[in-house]
Amino acid sequence: MTSEAEMEVEEGYISPPPTLPSTRCSVQAGSMRRGSDVLSTSRGTVRERGRNRSWLLSSIITVNVLILGIALVSGSVFNNVKINAINLQIFLIVLIILTTAWMLYYTIYTSREDHAVLYKDSHAGPVWLRGGLVLFGLCSLIMDVFKIANYVGYLHCDSAVKIVFPVLQAVFILVQTYFLWLHAKDCVQLQRNITRCGLMLTLSTNLMLWMAAVTEESLHQTVVPPEDGNSTHSYDIRASGGYSSCNCSHSACAVLEKAYYYLYPFNIEYSLFASAMAYVMWKNVGRLVDEHNHHSLHFRLKDVLVGPAVGLVMLVAGLGTFVIYEVDVKKGDPGKRDTVLMIHYVMNTVAVTLMSVSTVAGCAIYRLDQRDHVSGKNPTRSLDVGLLIGASIGQFTICYFTIVAVVATGAEGHLNALNLAVSLLTVIQLCLQNIFIIEGLHREPFHEDMHQASVFTNPYVLQAQAHRDIHNLPGTFMETKMSPALTVHSMHVAPSGSPLPQRHRLTWKRRALKEICAFLLLCNILLWIMPAFGARPQFDNTIGAEFYEFTMWAAVVNIGLPFGIFYRMHSVASLFEVFLTS
Amino acid sequence: MTSEAEMEVEEGYISPPPTLPSTRCSVQAGSMRRGSDVLSTSRGTVRERGRNRSWLLSSIITVNVLILGIALVSGSVFNNVKINAINLQIFLIVLIILTTAWMLYYTIYTSREDHAVLYKDSHAGPVWLRGGLVLFGLCSLIMDVFKIANYVGYLHCDSAVKIVFPVLQAVFILVQTYFLWLHAKDCVQLQRNITRCGLMLTLSTNLMLWMAAVTEESLHQTVVPPEDGNSTHSYDIRASGGYSSCNCSHSACAVLEKAYYYLYPFNIEYSLFASAMAYVMWKNVGRLVDEHNHHSLHFRLKDVLVGPAVGLVMLVAGLGTFVIYEVDVKKGDPGKRDTVLMIHYVMNTVAVTLMSVSTVAGCAIYRLDQRDHVSGKNPTRSLDVGLLIGASIGQFTICYFTIVAVVATGAEGHLNALNLAVSLLTVIQLCLQNIFIIEGLHREPFHEDMHQASVFTNPYVLQAQAHRDIHNLPGTFMETKMSPALTVHSMHVAPSGSPLPQRHRLTWKRRALKEICAFLLLCNILLWIMPAFGARPQFDNTIGAEFYEFTMWAAVVNIGLPFGIFYRMHSVASLFEVFLTS
Repeated sequence: MTSEAEMEVEEGYISPPPTLPSTRCSVQAGSMRRGSDVLSTSRGTVRERGRNRSWLLSSIITVNVLILGIALVSGSVFNNVKINAINLQIFLIVLIILTTAWMLYYTIYTSREDHAVLYKDSHAGPVWLRGGLVLFGLCSLIMDVFKIANYVGYLHCDSAVKIVFPVLQAVFILVQTYFLWLHAKDCVQLQRNITRCGLMLTLSTNLMLWMAAVTEESLHQTVVPPEDGNSTHSYDIRASGGYSSCNCSHSACAVLEKAYYYLYPFNIEYSLFASAMAYVMWKNVGRLVDEHNHHSLHFRLKDVLVGPAVGLVMLVAGLGTFVIYEVDVKKGDPGKRDTVLMIHYVMNTVAVTLMSVSTVAGCAIYRLDQRDHVSGKNPTRSLDVGLLIGASIGQFTICYFTIVAVVATGAEGHLNALNLAVSLLTVIQLCLQNIFIIEGLHREPFHEDMHQASVFTNPYVLQAQAHRDIHNLPGTFMETKMSPALTVHSMHVAPSGSPLPQRHRLTWKRRALKEICAFLLLCNILLWIMPAFGARPQFDNTIGAEFYEFTMWAAVVNIGLPFGIFYRMHSVASLFEVFLTS
Repeated sequence: MTSEAEMEVEEGYISPPPTLPSTRCSVQAGSMRRGSDVLSTSRGTVRERGRNRSWLLSSIITVNVLILGIALVSGSVFNNVKINAINLQIFLIVLIILTTAWMLYYTIYTSREDHAVLYKDSHAGPVWLRGGLVLFGLCSLIMDVFKIANYVGYLHCDSAVKIVFPVLQAVFILVQTYFLWLHAKDCVQLQRNITRCGLMLTLSTNLMLWMAAVTEESLHQTVVPPEDGNSTHSYDIRASGGYSSCNCSHSACAVLEKAYYYLYPFNIEYSLFASAMAYVMWKNVGRLVDEHNHHSLHFRLKDVLVGPAVGLVMLVAGLGTFVIYEVDVKKGDPGKRDTVLMIHYVMNTVAVTLMSVSTVAGCAIYRLDQRDHVSGKNPTRSLDVGLLIGASIGQFTICYFTIVAVVATGAEGHLNALNLAVSLLTVIQLCLQNIFIIEGLHREPFHEDMHQASVFTNPYVLQAQAHRDIHNLPGTFMETKMSPALTVHSMHVAPSGSPLPQRHRLTWKRRALKEICAFLLLCNILLWIMPAFGARPQFDNTIGAEFYEFTMWAAVVNIGLPFGIFYRMHSVASLFEVFLTS
């Protein structure tokens, strides 16, 4: 019975256990259950109804905005006559203006009302997320400045919308960064319906900006194969709005255009960070959390040495091969292309293998480690886990498509064998890394002060227990909740005697986990940089485009890769959190 | 404070409210909270850890199976040299054998162990779902028999795998229907890890079968436009494995092939039903539910008249226009094609407008209706809502793509105006129907016996309350949970005096809701039949294929439409449930 009570607690129920010792108690339990039914269906009804309605309404707004946006983006990609970048930008401008207006309204409203925000979710908007937002926001602002300067040169022969858009986007980035920096932890209680819709609008706008940026970036990176027309002709003329007959009036245009394409990955990450924060805020609307003591975790690098060192070696080596790859691929010499592809694949194979091995070691340490699992509702963690698995699907897709193509064509030659090896190892690495990170995120942070032990030396616990034994009639419900805790704890503490020796025993495990996290973190940065700044072995190796049709393959890579890039970025953030809590 | 206690209950927390009247109580509450922390982190840890691990492992299996499957399906669609239907079928055969083996193992294991299944989820696998499963399973079996008979004719010149696959699929359907009929409600407690993985394997297999069937069906229905080759050449030669040089040895082949394509929609629905049930079983693994009294709801048609009557008229008229449409479009005469497209659009406009109007009326009645909202965990309902919104995205996508294409080309002529009108109205109808169904699913069923009122005449409740007032020290926690219930209820009952008059007042509302549900149900059947049995106005009206490129448009329609078809089917099921509970 104790374990049943415990399981119901775990599932978030409050109804008492089904069987109770005495008849009198069970009658009471029955009435109590019905009482709590009424509790949750009477006044709770009003809240529940309001929540359902605004939840539904805001979801429907998002679905409509996003799908209309997808249609416009697709139209502007595949058809350059009727719908062009201008139409899409007008749509985005409308979204940006609406969202900015709402964010200003919210900021002003909450600053005027004294008790507008009573609760804060301590898990939401951690400092690295907000710091990243500011950093990427700055890069996005620079990108917008470059864009404005670039389009000024085309003003005499191109639409003014092209300048209005980056100007408004810059304003939007400023307002949004300020808004999210201040309010990311809010659990909004007032004007819940408006806030839910406003947050979903913010989410939609950011996802639309992400989608537009990803599409433009992908088209810029996609090189149509020679057989479709003249050699290595890039799509980017179409993507940048078709001013082939319109010449820039100042000389800096070419440089500016190159520069702002290098800032695209940061802008893409900015939109995703903002989306994630808006989603967590939306989940937190109407939520009441008790301010539990959130341990401030320090970042100290001096504990670890091997992991960061090996990771840095990998990072430098990887960046070296990446530069060689980019330079040689741009030249377009087929002989050199095969050589640099080979180097790129070898580099990836080494990185992914080392990562897999260290992740396996990390998982083994987790099995040995007796640290507790955290429980309780936490939208931030759920989102992290969901995004991790969701984003990895992009990378999985590209890998499996490559595997099928290579296996079906017979995998002849070193290049194909390496390609197959990289894809297979990446699949394994993704699975292992997901397991490692999710396991790590679900562990209790290691606390230096061992505050948990103090609970059981607290005399009030035993005193309360004694009280309940005396007045055991009305306290039955409580007792069934309390006693397993105490029983279980004594079982838990027993093997180690006092908790202090266990802490010292854990030290090497903690250190090893931190080393592994640091190494994985640096490797993930490497695997983020390469695709984010333009490595496209999927197109440079022609097997995919030959096996599937080019459009099909381009669709798979251009949809899958942005998710893969986001996955690496997100892994870095999650690994940093695991590093801190280990 | 009472409302805080109530809200925490609603959110699924068990920690006591933050402020308590006396110091002594708050100390106790503090220790209690810490106690419950330990409760959920000590023995709960083992369960939580096990749950996380097997949850993660089974998710990773699914992701890998599905993505490999998608790669194979895409390869077999876009490339008919290296990967063909045979490779895909071998993959499916492996999945089917593994899943069947697991299902047999589970059935035998649970029948041998006496206490293998202690808990059942009364919401899972309702009778209409299991009935639908059996019905669609029968149709799928007939389809398999037709397929076997058909492929026997090609045995002398085609792969034997083509016969092995339908044979094994038939065995799989028999075993799975038996398994799901018996075990759909199980909350598995033993061998949870194996069961989670087994259920996810079942889910993956069904989704793969669904994907394969949808692809084959879509290719069969997709007619490549005349400019790409000879007029109205269909893809289905490629889809059925390329036996253009292989002739059937018996005369029934052509008839059989036509016949089994008409059974495809049922097989597609079978896979989706089985997937949904496997998913709910997976969510229920390790869950402990108290068997609360599940009211048996009767289906009585005599209460309603107008709704079914108007709905039947719509259904018959719709089927009439559908037959005309199919016959005239097959002839391929462009003049007639425009006329029947016009008829088809007018029919759809009328249906969708009437549905929207009645849904608005239904939503208005919900606002007037004071019926309570159900609360508590219910994976079946969450899945229903998720699937409803998720599946509607397919239809939304097609509509928005059509709207963008028609608006961008200027919407000239009656045909385009009607196309635009249908698309816009369908978007509105989808939004309204989602709101109506989700609202309906979240309402408490209307109980004839008004059992809720009996709670408050139950003397034990007041007795227990008196007890707590005397022994108020250990009962504080309970009291804060109980008293709002009673207070709230007296507030709630007060305006209507006794609950009985309110019931009579509800009658016209109940009747109106039932009428609306019946009408919407029949209209959704109509909107299911038309695309499921081959109406493709998206291809017959060439605007989409002209505006977007043909491949792009075919991808949008062939991915979006199966979800749209599923949406209509799922709406029928959900509306039936809303009809019963109204």
